[in-house]
Amino acid sequence: MRQHKLALCKEHYLVWVPEQTERFIKKYDMFSHDERVLVAVSGGKDSLSLWDILVRLGYQADGLYIGLGIDGGIGYSSESQRLSQEFADAHSQTLHVVDVEKEYGQPIPVLAERTHRGFGKPCAVCGLTKRHVMNRIARDLGYDVLATGHNLDDEAAVLFGNTLVWEGSYLLRQGPVLPESPGLARKVKPLCRFYEREMTAYAIARGIEYIYEECPFAEGSTSIYYKEILNQLETARPGAKLTFYLRFLEARRNGLFREDEKAIRNLHPCPNCEQPTSAPGLCSFCRMIEKVDQSEILGE
Amino acid sequence: MRQHKLALCKEHYLVWVPEQTERFIKKYDMFSHDERVLVAVSGGKDSLSLWDILVRLGYQADGLYIGLGIDGGIGYSSESQRLSQEFADAHSQTLHVVDVEKEYGQPIPVLAERTHRGFGKPCAVCGLTKRHVMNRIARDLGYDVLATGHNLDDEAAVLFGNTLVWEGSYLLRQGPVLPESPGLARKVKPLCRFYEREMTAYAIARGIEYIYEECPFAEGSTSIYYKEILNQLETARPGAKLTFYLRFLEARRNGLFREDEKAIRNLHPCPNCEQPTSAPGLCSFCRMIEKVDQSEILGE
Repeated sequence: MRQHKLALCKEHYLVWVPEQTERFIKKYDMFSHDERVLVAVSGGKDSLSLWDILVRLGYQADGLYIGLGIDGGIGYSSESQRLSQEFADAHSQTLHVVDVEKEYGQPIPVLAERTHRGFGKPCAVCGLTKRHVMNRIARDLGYDVLATGHNLDDEAAVLFGNTLVWEGSYLLRQGPVLPESPGLARKVKPLCRFYEREMTAYAIARGIEYIYEECPFAEGSTSIYYKEILNQLETARPGAKLTFYLRFLEARRNGLFREDEKAIRNLHPCPNCEQPTSAPGLCSFCRMIEKVDQSEILGE
Repeated sequence: MRQHKLALCKEHYLVWVPEQTERFIKKYDMFSHDERVLVAVSGGKDSLSLWDILVRLGYQADGLYIGLGIDGGIGYSSESQRLSQEFADAHSQTLHVVDVEKEYGQPIPVLAERTHRGFGKPCAVCGLTKRHVMNRIARDLGYDVLATGHNLDDEAAVLFGNTLVWEGSYLLRQGPVLPESPGLARKVKPLCRFYEREMTAYAIARGIEYIYEECPFAEGSTSIYYKEILNQLETARPGAKLTFYLRFLEARRNGLFREDEKAIRNLHPCPNCEQPTSAPGLCSFCRMIEKVDQSEILGE
């Protein structure tokens, strides 16, 4: 780990990663041992490693797998569900499973097609759906915290994209913790300071079986492009990615940005699902489902 | 010009560039026809084009050439001085010349070596010296405004570098205009919205003879590296560079940043040169010259 000037053997690496994670959880006040954590599990290395680490650290962490119905010729969703379930069973942990097609009538690719969102890519619809389901399950089952496996590469890429167009409202919200708000559990990213390759190394060293393939729709995505650019910067200057992310958090904490009260969006509960929304009337998710249901009735 | 969805023939291009420059000068309130402008001229395409444009637009614009004493095996400084003087003569304009070696005892590379600043590169010393000389000449000769030829690529690269490490104080200051302060003329960058290639095209179409070579010390510099990264982003998304710079200015104007009164540095006049400085005692420039003079006395 050039950015830390640190090299560890397998045995100590498997101790170091959970120790560091515990440090980040405390530093950013993510959650305590008394709170119930719902881990969003995709079957990939980050989320399964996160779950593994939280369980080892003695937290009350259950998993949530969302079946998106994405095949891509590699059985992407069924394979990632199988690996998630195997991990849960092997560690005697609870995995909640929500199948999007069963609950909302159609898998993600069809929802995306029917709603004409996202220029042929289902990523926008997928993100919207996952956020909605995670929030719903956390609320319905009474979890205090939602934890996702975003690593430093993910976070730096999002920050980079928002910075290139100076998206103020996103810059003010991005971080390791998004505090709870009425109707929404706190969201936390305990792995946000680990490089992607560090998480790969952890999953492999720990012997976690995870799905190697990226989502078939990820190819050519903006976030992958930004990750490549950041990798170039990292190669030229080891630590550049971490510096970019941490200095941002530090500058914000030190008051670089004007965090205006007025900027807080006016939220109200969606009349259908009761999740907070800034949209007039139904929230974006319920509006999408309504549109798909109507297109079905009209036989489109 | 893909970012504007505009293609022009040579004749109209030579009209369009000065028109746009005039628009930027007015938009950012840079200077009026009553004010005296000092153009920092390096002999390169940007600064000579800027001078050309300002003269054509009817502004009172004199040139300032600073002889840095950089040879690099190509007679860099002498050649750029010759081209600057030729331009001045051909257009019957006044060019002030300040020779660093004559005025301060040593050329830039020696000043840099003697002061051990900048890890073998004289760029930091060169920047410090140029700022000092420009400020001095503007004050001594009573110019209202100092204009430099920075183009969009220059500005975007500086912004990119400051953003990667979230340098708050620089982010709050960077822009097309740096207002005058006690003892310092206003500084403006009328070309800050033109791509580098647009300025090259202008200089060539106008038949301006400029020095093609980059400064021999520029090779491998961080700013060139950032320009390459931004060029990649621009290739993938035409207009990305302009968006990055303009959205930054817009976000700042709309109050994204907290521009704290306390953040304004406590400036006092340097006891030697009387230029404002935040350093205790002598300003950085006078301290550097003092150090070089002492090393001479000590026979180092």
